[in-house]
Amino acid sequence: MAKEVYFRKEDLEKYIIHFLTTYSVSEEDAKTIAGVIMAADLRGVHSHGIASLHVYCGDRLRAGLIDASNTFKILKETPNTAVYDGGNGFGQVCGFKAMSSCIDKAKNHTVGLATARNSNHFGIAGYYAMMALKHNMIGISLTNSEPLIAPTYRKTRMLGTNPIAVAVPARNKHPYVLDMATSIVPLGKVMLAETKGEKIPAGYGIDARGEVTTDPMEVKKGGALLPLGGTDIMSGYKGYGLALLVDILCGVLSGASFGSSVGSPIGTSGPNVDIGHFFMAVNIETFRALDDFTRDMDKLIAQLISAPKASGQQRIYIHGEKEFEKMAEYEASGIPLPAAVVDVLKAKGREAGVEFDVNPIKSMNAINGHDQV
Amino acid sequence: MAKEVYFRKEDLEKYIIHFLTTYSVSEEDAKTIAGVIMAADLRGVHSHGIASLHVYCGDRLRAGLIDASNTFKILKETPNTAVYDGGNGFGQVCGFKAMSSCIDKAKNHTVGLATARNSNHFGIAGYYAMMALKHNMIGISLTNSEPLIAPTYRKTRMLGTNPIAVAVPARNKHPYVLDMATSIVPLGKVMLAETKGEKIPAGYGIDARGEVTTDPMEVKKGGALLPLGGTDIMSGYKGYGLALLVDILCGVLSGASFGSSVGSPIGTSGPNVDIGHFFMAVNIETFRALDDFTRDMDKLIAQLISAPKASGQQRIYIHGEKEFEKMAEYEASGIPLPAAVVDVLKAKGREAGVEFDVNPIKSMNAINGHDQV
Repeated sequence: MAKEVYFRKEDLEKYIIHFLTTYSVSEEDAKTIAGVIMAADLRGVHSHGIASLHVYCGDRLRAGLIDASNTFKILKETPNTAVYDGGNGFGQVCGFKAMSSCIDKAKNHTVGLATARNSNHFGIAGYYAMMALKHNMIGISLTNSEPLIAPTYRKTRMLGTNPIAVAVPARNKHPYVLDMATSIVPLGKVMLAETKGEKIPAGYGIDARGEVTTDPMEVKKGGALLPLGGTDIMSGYKGYGLALLVDILCGVLSGASFGSSVGSPIGTSGPNVDIGHFFMAVNIETFRALDDFTRDMDKLIAQLISAPKASGQQRIYIHGEKEFEKMAEYEASGIPLPAAVVDVLKAKGREAGVEFDVNPIKSMNAINGHDQV
Repeated sequence: MAKEVYFRKEDLEKYIIHFLTTYSVSEEDAKTIAGVIMAADLRGVHSHGIASLHVYCGDRLRAGLIDASNTFKILKETPNTAVYDGGNGFGQVCGFKAMSSCIDKAKNHTVGLATARNSNHFGIAGYYAMMALKHNMIGISLTNSEPLIAPTYRKTRMLGTNPIAVAVPARNKHPYVLDMATSIVPLGKVMLAETKGEKIPAGYGIDARGEVTTDPMEVKKGGALLPLGGTDIMSGYKGYGLALLVDILCGVLSGASFGSSVGSPIGTSGPNVDIGHFFMAVNIETFRALDDFTRDMDKLIAQLISAPKASGQQRIYIHGEKEFEKMAEYEASGIPLPAAVVDVLKAKGREAGVEFDVNPIKSMNAINGHDQV
């Protein structure tokens, strides 16, 4: 069983800020980026947590492929809407600022919508949707991404796993937080099966000829992921439709790259990522008294979770519930990182001249698997 | 092979208007309802076409369960938003008026959003989303519906097949029109398999114990449909999340029924349907010059359809494309209705005292299957 090392969230956050500011990121922006990365680890989405620090941020920052000089700017604005240019800066900074403006607009004008072009990978989409929660608003956050999904009847990668994130406040229950890739699974889950020498369920992906395969290597080498639903018979064209919708709103509406033109946000593979995002905040009071709304959200959630379970099942979950429970656990007992991830952080830190010298609070054999969205 | 009878769209539309006005529906509202029903037949979604006239409209109107007296009213309004009460009138009338107001609001104020409570079945969701197209806007239309989907790990019906419809204009290409139930397939498709004595693919639905079944009867009798994605391993909780989101926006945000409280809109099964809808129109010019937007939509669509096909496939489709082609065909050669549907229209017409005396333009053996969304 793999060893896991537990760290305090505050300590990891402090390291990320230290690393980023060493490479000329402003203190304010570094705090924003660290907050988004930590939110991923706290929610158990470790693929977008500190394990991805160098992949999406560090390597590109050091190679000069992400512009940390805060060139984020507004291109067009109305009381309800805004169009931003991320200035090829950090996606997290772009996302945080754009979503903040949506919330401000929704406060005064019922709803706020924003698009952003010329951005980079922004971490978990759910972070920005959830920003609306503390303002008792509904938040929506979408992003396009590098081509990985093959549309129905196509054999090559063309659309990103373009996630849809929506957060809705409840009263005493956890908020509803949907944060889903529009593929059945992310590529990371296929890679993980490959590392473990396991097969993948038929439907996750296709090989280079466009045939469904259970071999993760075939998906990786010239194959593609399938959209939510999978093959045509299981209505995979619906997942394809959702992935395409996200690309339309994030890529075409914003004026960013779209389809097969979206760049890879990984490592040092070229400067032209030009990812686009879409954000929206809805002021609930515009439609209904907040008290009535949150009461009914609790009722709906109670209906769902108290219902007869399928055989062998103990619980019915609402979206985001598992992640809120994980967050409470990790905040109390520390965030577990696989020893291999810690080794990479140490090696990369040394390479970058910013030693990863964070003290763990404990080490133990792995219990929780590392989830992916 | 079943016989199909072809009718001119105008003739069927005229009959629907005649039928509805005979039962005190205003000329204006009858035209609206007929327009929505005909749009379904023209797009090949015959389950929501004239075959459903008596199921969703006629029987309930005659039984006094739908209030035709046009009590649709506005409850709350801002320059960008509106909250409507459908007055237990026709869902089509409610949908048409609410979406029209969204479009008007978007013209002056960048976006328009509306919720509606106390409504009935409104036909194909795509109709209202597509209303935005002629104004060069993006249209969104959602509705909740009677419980048919079992959420992940639950064995009973709890959420409707709650459709998501989004329409986006292009330039020379057909617009993108996504109109999808959030289940893998609608119940009608399962029923059809039962009628034909066929099995259904594993994943479409579960039996009363919560187990996946290939027997359509088991789904019908105490079982449930599964959400898009299907079982947990294929990420069915994502489809469950989308169905739930539609219920939140249409049911909870509007103040309509939600979850297992949504009534059945079929036949004469009780007065308290209280369906809720959600509509949105986005003025593209707020974000980007329309010319640039539609040019890039054409580019994205061209990229998709010209790509390498999977083996055995001739074409890659954009959402709505098949339906636009069907519409052109049906407008030229007539709308095909199965002889059995014509028989029902005749029997029901006689029963209601409004003879279905529409002359067909031709009869022939069936070529096209009758699709469902």
